[in-house]
Amino acid sequence: MQTMRANVFHGVNNIAVEEVPRPRAGVGEAVIRITLTTICGTDLHILRGEYPVKPGLIIGHEPVGVIEELGPGVTGYEIGDRVLVGAITPCGQCRGCLSGQSSQCGRDSGYEAIGGWRFGNTINGAQAEYLLVPNAQANLAKIPDDVSDEQVILLADIASTGFSGAESGQVRIGDTVVVFAQGPIGLCATAGARLMGASFVIGVDSDPNRMKMSRHMGADVVLNFAEQDVAAEVKRLTGGGADVAIEALGTQSTFETALRSLRPGGTLSSLGVYSGKLAVPYDAFAAGIGDYKIITTLCPGGKERMRRLIETVRNGRVDLTPLLTHTFSLDNIAAAYDLFGSRSDNVLKVAIKP
Amino acid sequence: MQTMRANVFHGVNNIAVEEVPRPRAGVGEAVIRITLTTICGTDLHILRGEYPVKPGLIIGHEPVGVIEELGPGVTGYEIGDRVLVGAITPCGQCRGCLSGQSSQCGRDSGYEAIGGWRFGNTINGAQAEYLLVPNAQANLAKIPDDVSDEQVILLADIASTGFSGAESGQVRIGDTVVVFAQGPIGLCATAGARLMGASFVIGVDSDPNRMKMSRHMGADVVLNFAEQDVAAEVKRLTGGGADVAIEALGTQSTFETALRSLRPGGTLSSLGVYSGKLAVPYDAFAAGIGDYKIITTLCPGGKERMRRLIETVRNGRVDLTPLLTHTFSLDNIAAAYDLFGSRSDNVLKVAIKP
Amino acid sequence: MQTMRANVFHGVNNIAVEEVPRPRAGVGEAVIRITLTTICGTDLHILRGEYPVKPGLIIGHEPVGVIEELGPGVTGYEIGDRVLVGAITPCGQCRGCLSGQSSQCGRDSGYEAIGGWRFGNTINGAQAEYLLVPNAQANLAKIPDDVSDEQVILLADIASTGFSGAESGQVRIGDTVVVFAQGPIGLCATAGARLMGASFVIGVDSDPNRMKMSRHMGADVVLNFAEQDVAAEVKRLTGGGADVAIEALGTQSTFETALRSLRPGGTLSSLGVYSGKLAVPYDAFAAGIGDYKIITTLCPGGKERMRRLIETVRNGRVDLTPLLTHTFSLDNIAAAYDLFGSRSDNVLKVAIKP
Amino acid sequence: MQTMRANVFHGVNNIAVEEVPRPRAGVGEAVIRITLTTICGTDLHILRGEYPVKPGLIIGHEPVGVIEELGPGVTGYEIGDRVLVGAITPCGQCRGCLSGQSSQCGRDSGYEAIGGWRFGNTINGAQAEYLLVPNAQANLAKIPDDVSDEQVILLADIASTGFSGAESGQVRIGDTVVVFAQGPIGLCATAGARLMGASFVIGVDSDPNRMKMSRHMGADVVLNFAEQDVAAEVKRLTGGGADVAIEALGTQSTFETALRSLRPGGTLSSLGVYSGKLAVPYDAFAAGIGDYKIITTLCPGGKERMRRLIETVRNGRVDLTPLLTHTFSLDNIAAAYDLFGSRSDNVLKVAIKP
Repeated sequence: MQTMRANVFHGVNNIAVEEVPRPRAGVGEAVIRITLTTICGTDLHILRGEYPVKPGLIIGHEPVGVIEELGPGVTGYEIGDRVLVGAITPCGQCRGCLSGQSSQCGRDSGYEAIGGWRFGNTINGAQAEYLLVPNAQANLAKIPDDVSDEQVILLADIASTGFSGAESGQVRIGDTVVVFAQGPIGLCATAGARLMGASFVIGVDSDPNRMKMSRHMGADVVLNFAEQDVAAEVKRLTGGGADVAIEALGTQSTFETALRSLRPGGTLSSLGVYSGKLAVPYDAFAAGIGDYKIITTLCPGGKERMRRLIETVRNGRVDLTPLLTHTFSLDNIAAAYDLFGSRSDNVLKVAIKP
Repeated sequence: MQTMRANVFHGVNNIAVEEVPRPRAGVGEAVIRITLTTICGTDLHILRGEYPVKPGLIIGHEPVGVIEELGPGVTGYEIGDRVLVGAITPCGQCRGCLSGQSSQCGRDSGYEAIGGWRFGNTINGAQAEYLLVPNAQANLAKIPDDVSDEQVILLADIASTGFSGAESGQVRIGDTVVVFAQGPIGLCATAGARLMGASFVIGVDSDPNRMKMSRHMGADVVLNFAEQDVAAEVKRLTGGGADVAIEALGTQSTFETALRSLRPGGTLSSLGVYSGKLAVPYDAFAAGIGDYKIITTLCPGGKERMRRLIETVRNGRVDLTPLLTHTFSLDNIAAAYDLFGSRSDNVLKVAIKP
Repeated sequence: MQTMRANVFHGVNNIAVEEVPRPRAGVGEAVIRITLTTICGTDLHILRGEYPVKPGLIIGHEPVGVIEELGPGVTGYEIGDRVLVGAITPCGQCRGCLSGQSSQCGRDSGYEAIGGWRFGNTINGAQAEYLLVPNAQANLAKIPDDVSDEQVILLADIASTGFSGAESGQVRIGDTVVVFAQGPIGLCATAGARLMGASFVIGVDSDPNRMKMSRHMGADVVLNFAEQDVAAEVKRLTGGGADVAIEALGTQSTFETALRSLRPGGTLSSLGVYSGKLAVPYDAFAAGIGDYKIITTLCPGGKERMRRLIETVRNGRVDLTPLLTHTFSLDNIAAAYDLFGSRSDNVLKVAIKP
Repeated sequence: MQTMRANVFHGVNNIAVEEVPRPRAGVGEAVIRITLTTICGTDLHILRGEYPVKPGLIIGHEPVGVIEELGPGVTGYEIGDRVLVGAITPCGQCRGCLSGQSSQCGRDSGYEAIGGWRFGNTINGAQAEYLLVPNAQANLAKIPDDVSDEQVILLADIASTGFSGAESGQVRIGDTVVVFAQGPIGLCATAGARLMGASFVIGVDSDPNRMKMSRHMGADVVLNFAEQDVAAEVKRLTGGGADVAIEALGTQSTFETALRSLRPGGTLSSLGVYSGKLAVPYDAFAAGIGDYKIITTLCPGGKERMRRLIETVRNGRVDLTPLLTHTFSLDNIAAAYDLFGSRSDNVLKVAIKP
C-alpha cells in the first residue's frame, strides 16, 4: 500500500503531519496530487474543538492539484490535468442538487444541512499530498495554462463564499453595500459587491491592515467599529441605510449592526458561522414588517462555479493574490496554523505546498 | 362645516364613536363614503396600547366605499364609483415606491419603515362614515358591478398580507408549505399557498374552529401545536422539512418552530408583528450556513394590487366571505371590538357598516 | 444474449415492433422493465421524417417501469422499485446541469442544445420491454404505492412541459393567461396556469372536444380561432392584453397571435417546436421597445422534477388521467400511431403497455 | 405670455429653432430651465420621418436643468434645485407603473405600449430653453453639487438604456457577454456588462473609432463584423456561445447574429428599435426548445433610476464624458443634427446648451 504525508486531526489542539495510506479512486471518483492548499478559519475552529470532526480525519478543504487517478465513470479528463476543486463538492444528482441548492447536497438522502461540505469535515481533506475527490465528474475544474495555482487557490472557498455574499444580496447597479468584517471572506465580499455594480461600498473592521486591504479590494470608505457608531454612520453615508449589508464574521454584534445599517426593505446577506443564540432586535427589524430579508449562504461549489470564478480571475476582474500573504511547506503546517491563528504579521491567508 | 360619525381613539382602552369634522379632498386626494369596513388585529393592539398612535385619531384601515369627492389632479374616476382601497396607500412617486417597495413608502423622504401604512396609523382611518384617501390616483381600485362589498373587503389587508406570505416564500408548483397560526391572515396564507401550486399545505393552530376553517381554505393536514411536536411532524410529513414556512402570528414560538420545520435551504416567510427580541436558534439555523432565508413582508397595497386580488375573487379562485362571521353597525362598533377581542362565538372577522 | 420486444424506427413511415437485444446497465446506469409508456407528438414527427433520428433507434421517451438492474455507482435504489423517468435525462454534472439548465445537458462537452433529450432521440427509447436509463442516480423517481402508473405517466413529458409554460411565464396570483392550442401540452399548460394562481385563463383551439377538455383542465373561457379574432378578443377580455401567453403548438400563426394578445411588457412563453423561419411582426412587438419577453422552454426532467410532479398528482392538485383516452399493447403500437396521428375518436394520449 | 427658444419639428427634414410660448406648471408638474441637453438617434429617426410625431412638437428627451416653477402637489423641491430628468417619465400611479413596468406607463388607461416615453414624442421635449415635466414628483432627480451636468446628461437615456441591456440579460459574475453595435447605447451596454461582473465582454462593430472606444468602455475583445464571422468567433472565444448577447442597433442582421452567438439557454437582451418584420431563424433558435430567452427593454426612467445612476457616476464606477464629443448652442442645433447624422468627425454624442 502506498502512503502519503497528511495533516491529521487527533483531537482538540492536536494535529500532526504523518504518513497515512494514499487514497485510490473508486467509481465516479478521482485522486489528485495536491500542488497548493491553504488553511481556513474553519480549520482553526476544528483545531480548537469549536467545530467537531472525527479524530483521524485529514483536514483542509481548499485544493489545487493534478489528476493522478480517475475512477470508472469519470470522463473528459486525463491524468495530469491541473484542476481546482471547490471546498463544497456537490454530487449533482440528489434532491438538493437538482433543486439548485447544491451546497445542501444530500447525495441519496434528500437534503442534508451543509451536506455539500465534505472535505476535512466528513471525508479526508486537502492538507495532504493526495486527495480523493468524490463525485469527480461534477467537481474537477480544469485550470487554463495561463493561470497559476496561486491565482485560483482562494476561489475554492473564500472567494466563492465572499462573492456569494453579494450574489445572495442581489446587489444591483447603483446599490449601496456595507460589509461587516474584512477578513479574507469579508474582503472577497467587498470585491464581490464591486464586481456586481454597487455604486458605494463600505467596509467595516478595526484592524488597520485589513482596513487598508479593504480599500484595495474595492471599498469606497472603511469604518472602524471600535471608533464610531457604524450603523449611524452607514445611514448617514447612504442617505437612510444600505441596500445590502453583508455579514462576514458570525457574531451577534456584526449581525445586529448589519441589520441596523439597512434601509427599510433592505437585505442582510449573512455568511458568518454563528454559535449560540442569535437575537434579532425588535426595533432593528421594524417589528417584522419592514420588508427586511435575511439570506444565509454556504459557499457555492462544483466545477461550473469554479470555472466561472477562474475566468473572472483570468480576465483580470479581481486579483486575489494579495490575500495570500505567507507560504509554508506541508511538513511545516503547524507553524502556519500558529501564524494564522494569531493573526500576527498581517497574515490574511497562508499558502501550503506539499 | 359638515360632520360625520367616526370611531376615535382617545387612549388605552378608550375608543368612542362620535361626531367629527368630515374630510375634504385636497390636491391628489379623494374622499370616499365608507360602505363597509372591518376591524383588524392591529386595531386591537392599538386599543390595548400595544401599538402607539396619537389620541384623537380615527382608526381602521380596511375600506370599501363610494367616491364622494375628487381633489385636483385625480383623473379617470367619477363621483359615485364604488372602490376598494388597500390598507397600505403608497404614493407611487418616492424612492421606496419607485424601487418596488411601496409598503415602505417614504413619500418625499426616501424610504420610511412601514411608511405605506397610513390609515388609522398616521392619518385618519376607515372606521367612519367618510375617509380621506391620500395619493388617490394610486390607490382607488374600482369594484366591478358583479362583485359585492363583502367579497372584496378582506382583500384590503388580510388577504393581501396572507397571499404575500406565499408570494414572498416564492412558492412553486410541487412545494410543501406549512402555515403557523390559522387566524384570518394565516387562513389567507393557507389559501395563497394553494393558489400558487403548493402540492402539500399544512396548517398549524389549536383552536378547533380555526383548524376546521384551515382545511376549508386549503390545508391538506392541520396540526394542533398543543398536542404534538409540530416541527418533527412537519419533517416527517414532508420527508425532511417544508420548502416554505409561513409565520402568521408574531411570537418567538411560532417563529422558531417555523424555522425548525424547514428543509435545509428553505424559506421562512414571516408576516407576524413581533414585540421584544426575537431569537434565532443556532441549531435550527444550521449555524448560519444552511442557506436558509428569512423574508418579512408588510401587506402590499395600491390600486393595481387591489385590482388583481378583486379579479382573483371575481373569478372564483378564492372565497373569503366565510371569514366574515359577524356584522355590526358603526355605532355599535364597541361591541364588535369586544367580540373580536374575546375570540368568542368562533369569530374570525367582523363586518362594520356605517 | 437476452432479447426484448421494441418499437424500432427504420426510416420515414417505417417503424416495427421486433426482437432486439435487451440492454445491460453499465457504470451509473440502470435498466427498467417498462410497465407503461405512451406516444408523443414528437414521435409522430420522427415517423414522418420531420425530425431526423438514426434508423435502428428504439423510439419513445415517456417511461414508467420497475427497476430490473442497477449499474455500479447507483445507490439508494433496489431491484423492483417502481419508478418514473422524465423524458429529459440530465446528467447533473456538466456545465449546463450545474448552471441550472439541465434540459440543455451537455454531459462532458459544455452545453449542448436539447442535449438533455436522449431517449428515442440519441439513445434507445421507451417503446420497448426494457429501457436503459443513463445517469440513473439523477433520473429514477420512485413512485409511492398509493399512486398508479396511469396517474404519473404523463408527467414524464407533457405535464412537465405544459406546467413549465406557466412557470417560464412566471405566472403570478392575479395574472391573466392565454394558452394557444389545447392539445395534450396546451391542456397541461392551462392546468399549470391555474395551479400557479392565474385569475383568468383563456384556452384557444378549434376542436370541440379539446375546447371542452380545456374548460375541464381550468380555462375560464375557450376561444375558437376559426371563428373569431383571438388577439382582439383576448385584449377585450383582459382589459388590454394578457399578462402571459403560452404557445403550445409551434406555428407562425399561434406564435404571432400569442404576441399580439399580450399587454405591453407581457411574456410570451413558447413551448412549441417550430420549423422554418419564425417572423416577429414589428407592430406586435412595439418595435422592440415594448418590454416584451419571449421565453422558450424544453421539458424539465430529472428525478427531483418528477418527484415534485408526482406529489402534485398524489395530493389531487391535478388529474391527468382524463387525457389518457386509449390503451394499446406494445405489439399493437402501429394502430396506436395511426389513431394518434389521425386525431380521430377524440384521442388525446394513448397508453402503451408492453 | 412669456416665450422661449425651442427646436420645433415641422415635418420630414424640417426642424427649426424658433420662439414659442414658455410652459407653465399645472398640478403635479414642474418647469425646468434647461442647462444641457443632447440629440438622440431617435431624434434623427423623427427628423427623417422614420418615427412619426405631430408637426409643431418640440423634440428631444434628455434634460438637465434647474427648477423654475413647481405646480401644486409637488413637494420636497425648491426653485433653483439642479435636476436630471429621465427620457422616460413614468407617473408612478397607473397599472403599468404599479406593476413595476413604468416604461409602459399608461397613466390612467392601463398599460400603454411605450407610454412612458413622452418628451419629444407625445408632449414637448427638451431641445428648448424650458421644459414642462409631467408627474414631477416621480421624475425630478436632484444632482449633487460635486457632479457636473456633463457627467450626468447621458444617464437620461443612453446609459439607462445601455445598462438595462445588461440588467435585462441578468448578467452574473463570470458570464460572457457580447454586445452588438458600439454606438452610444452599445458602448453603455458594454460598460453595463462590466459593471455587473461579466468575466469576458466582446464588443462588435466595424467603425475603428467605436471599436477603440469599446475597449475603453470595458470590452476585452472587439470584433469587426465586416471582417469575420462574428457568431463563430464568439462561440470560439466563449467555449460554446455567450451567456448573454445584447443587441443595440435594431437590425435583422444584428438580431440574428446575436441569437447565433448564444450558448443553449442563453439570453438575447434586445435594446434596438426595429422596423419591418424580424425573422427568428429556426436553426439559431434550436427549433424553439433551446431554452433561449429574448428580452426587450425600453429605457428605464423615473427619479429613483436617475438617482442610482447619478451615484454610479459620482463614485467613479463609470465615466460617460468621453462619449460627449462635441458641443453646440441651441440656436446652432441644426449643425449638430448634421454632424450627428453624418457620423463624421468621430462624433458619438453632442452636447446642446440653450
